[in-house]
Amino acid sequence: MAERATANFTLSRLDTREADFEARLDALLDWEGVSDAEVQARVASIIQAVRARGDAALVELTARFDRLSVDGMASLTLSAERLAEAYEGLPEAQREALRHAAERVRAYHQHQKPESWQYTEADGTVLGQKITPLDRAGIYVPGGKAAYPSSVLMNAIPAHVAGVNEIIMVVPTPDGVLNELVLAAAHLAGVDRVFTLGGAQAVAALAYGTESVPRVDKIVGPGNIYVATAKRAVFGQVGIDMIAGPSEILVVSDGGTDPDWLAMDLFSQAEHDEDAQAILVSWDDAHLEAVEAAIERLLPTMERDAIIRQSLQARGALIRCRDRDEALALVNRIAPEHLELSVAEPEALLAQVRHAGAIFMGRYTAEALGDYCAGPNHVLPTSGTARFSSPLGVYDFQKRSSLIHCSAEGAATLGRTASVLARGESLTAHARSAENRIPDAD
Amino acid sequence: MAERATANFTLSRLDTREADFEARLDALLDWEGVSDAEVQARVASIIQAVRARGDAALVELTARFDRLSVDGMASLTLSAERLAEAYEGLPEAQREALRHAAERVRAYHQHQKPESWQYTEADGTVLGQKITPLDRAGIYVPGGKAAYPSSVLMNAIPAHVAGVNEIIMVVPTPDGVLNELVLAAAHLAGVDRVFTLGGAQAVAALAYGTESVPRVDKIVGPGNIYVATAKRAVFGQVGIDMIAGPSEILVVSDGGTDPDWLAMDLFSQAEHDEDAQAILVSWDDAHLEAVEAAIERLLPTMERDAIIRQSLQARGALIRCRDRDEALALVNRIAPEHLELSVAEPEALLAQVRHAGAIFMGRYTAEALGDYCAGPNHVLPTSGTARFSSPLGVYDFQKRSSLIHCSAEGAATLGRTASVLARGESLTAHARSAENRIPDAD
Repeated sequence: MAERATANFTLSRLDTREADFEARLDALLDWEGVSDAEVQARVASIIQAVRARGDAALVELTARFDRLSVDGMASLTLSAERLAEAYEGLPEAQREALRHAAERVRAYHQHQKPESWQYTEADGTVLGQKITPLDRAGIYVPGGKAAYPSSVLMNAIPAHVAGVNEIIMVVPTPDGVLNELVLAAAHLAGVDRVFTLGGAQAVAALAYGTESVPRVDKIVGPGNIYVATAKRAVFGQVGIDMIAGPSEILVVSDGGTDPDWLAMDLFSQAEHDEDAQAILVSWDDAHLEAVEAAIERLLPTMERDAIIRQSLQARGALIRCRDRDEALALVNRIAPEHLELSVAEPEALLAQVRHAGAIFMGRYTAEALGDYCAGPNHVLPTSGTARFSSPLGVYDFQKRSSLIHCSAEGAATLGRTASVLARGESLTAHARSAENRIPDAD
Repeated sequence: MAERATANFTLSRLDTREADFEARLDALLDWEGVSDAEVQARVASIIQAVRARGDAALVELTARFDRLSVDGMASLTLSAERLAEAYEGLPEAQREALRHAAERVRAYHQHQKPESWQYTEADGTVLGQKITPLDRAGIYVPGGKAAYPSSVLMNAIPAHVAGVNEIIMVVPTPDGVLNELVLAAAHLAGVDRVFTLGGAQAVAALAYGTESVPRVDKIVGPGNIYVATAKRAVFGQVGIDMIAGPSEILVVSDGGTDPDWLAMDLFSQAEHDEDAQAILVSWDDAHLEAVEAAIERLLPTMERDAIIRQSLQARGALIRCRDRDEALALVNRIAPEHLELSVAEPEALLAQVRHAGAIFMGRYTAEALGDYCAGPNHVLPTSGTARFSSPLGVYDFQKRSSLIHCSAEGAATLGRTASVLARGESLTAHARSAENRIPDAD
């Protein structure tokens, strides 16, 4: 049993028929991201420094945290030309793959563009809704080992499709290391300017503006605990996207998918980091055994096997359920970020799926395809928040304004109703303002 | 000069031609809502009590804060029948006004319903977006003097139109006082159940659930500092709407609207509370004088004159600008919650308005009409957040899931691109998961 070299590793097995199933599932899913008081205090003081001293604080903090010798903001600024150079300098295969991904992500997001609308009532009153893009968006891109060009595409392209006038990207360059793929992705995605800033100081600069960094209207993109804490702190001053928890996948298999494929799909989630969560649900006992064996066999062949092992052991699981309906109930209970319906007829299950960030249908649709280039966004609601939130999209970079244009007749009709209701709420200025527009009133 | 009895009151006059205009405008708009450490600690302990002891904590806290003698949750629960009774018991004029408002709000929000969509690519791959309503929404309604039936309609009807399966309302009843108009509005708006709970304890119950109160997916609705602090604290566990600042209006007048009408429009904003903000902008000097005179003349006739006076004095202003373009620049700079374009041809200005929660067009469209019954929502982004956020709407009670269904051919094409990009990010499990779906690979 050479494969059992990995036997010091135990993957949780749950069964819906067991009495403690609910408790074990709760424990498995439990996750509360918290930033402690010390992190909050450090972030608050960084934000204060940037608000008070602008560029000077940015230069100081960046020199210290990223171990750079910089003398001013000019050395922390990249031009559009530099981004184009990065793109042109890529090896052919990477340039083509990036271009293909960007094109598909753009095409999908074009479908999300809503239209302004209005309608006219019988008395001539016009009601409507006007859609406007944000003036300026800020994209945070992590530096170092978690620098993902795919995230640049996924965060910036929806802003560009939305019609945002200016897209500012910030990316730290610890020890001066620049990721050419990240810059190339920024070029393709329509980023206008890049500042090589990171951490809470980059978030503060985007939220409040400095002499060099323009204030934005919304900040999106992933980051470490300092970035997440800073985003929470500036929420209200600017818009932010969701604060993401660890990435997760729930795979539902009917037993017909190659166990090696499923093992690799679970690995692709688990390799992100130790807190990532990969769960497989099936009503086929033998299939679950086969996937477990595939996991044990393939794990030693993985480059990131230490991370995968830790993630699967701490947060992974194989769940045996009674049938398809029970699997669907689990889906809606868990509300996963990624849902893989690895079954013969995924369409038949779709109507019953109420909560999931992205749904990967059929045996061919590996989550990894969606992570890079299928088209839909890979920034998705985590930790059960798919119950109430959506993938990042064009709608995150636009907002709506209500339109009301009353005709004289409409104002009189509405004024009578408003007057009664306003007086019912003891708001008599409201009532009198409405009554002013009723001809026979006063 | 009998009107000058109000002369101890000064309304700020600003002029864009003055050197200190920007600084004065900044000071006028400055607003930061903060909850101090004591409030945060009290809210945290209330949330903890409700999570730990459920109904028992709710009964205790409600008895204490609302000065009620209650023996269990049954006495804090109102049935759908009780709501219907409240509606039937209203005076005819109020019942009719409420019904008229509800019908119009419902009709407008029907226009906001998006459709799920999907498209099929040449190789058979299907991409799409599925819209699903939230399972359960919680509506917070303040009790006591700020109990507004119109807010019940504005918060609950979009949830109902969205297709939310269950709408739970909470409303405190300090000293046992129930507002029949509020209950009647809940009946009309499609509220399923009401708990007479308030404060941080009501928010905690909705966010985490108790034996009697079901956990919801999103909490919306206005409240005092305890409610706002609790909503911020449970954000992530559930969705929340924006934390609202004081209500505000910006009126742009071309000089052609009756100064008495405009004075009353400003009063209708100012009468909400002392922090409310009412600003008038015009390029017509004589008109600004006339409106100021109207304000002084009409103020003593107002029921809520003390509040109006305080609000106008602290946060109101008349702004003289050079021309229409400068007025529009101010609009976009301020990004007001309510914008009244009290001009001859408001359509001509509309294209240049980028940021506003709701736009009231023409001399007949008093903001009060929109507050009650024009149709659009009166829950709007405040304090400049219209730069990046929208009125409350049907979209707040639905979420999107991405759909990806790759054909075998599509998976092979996408797999090649995903493989290159994943290897560029050193995520080899991603790469191998994608490569598994390429027939000639391995």
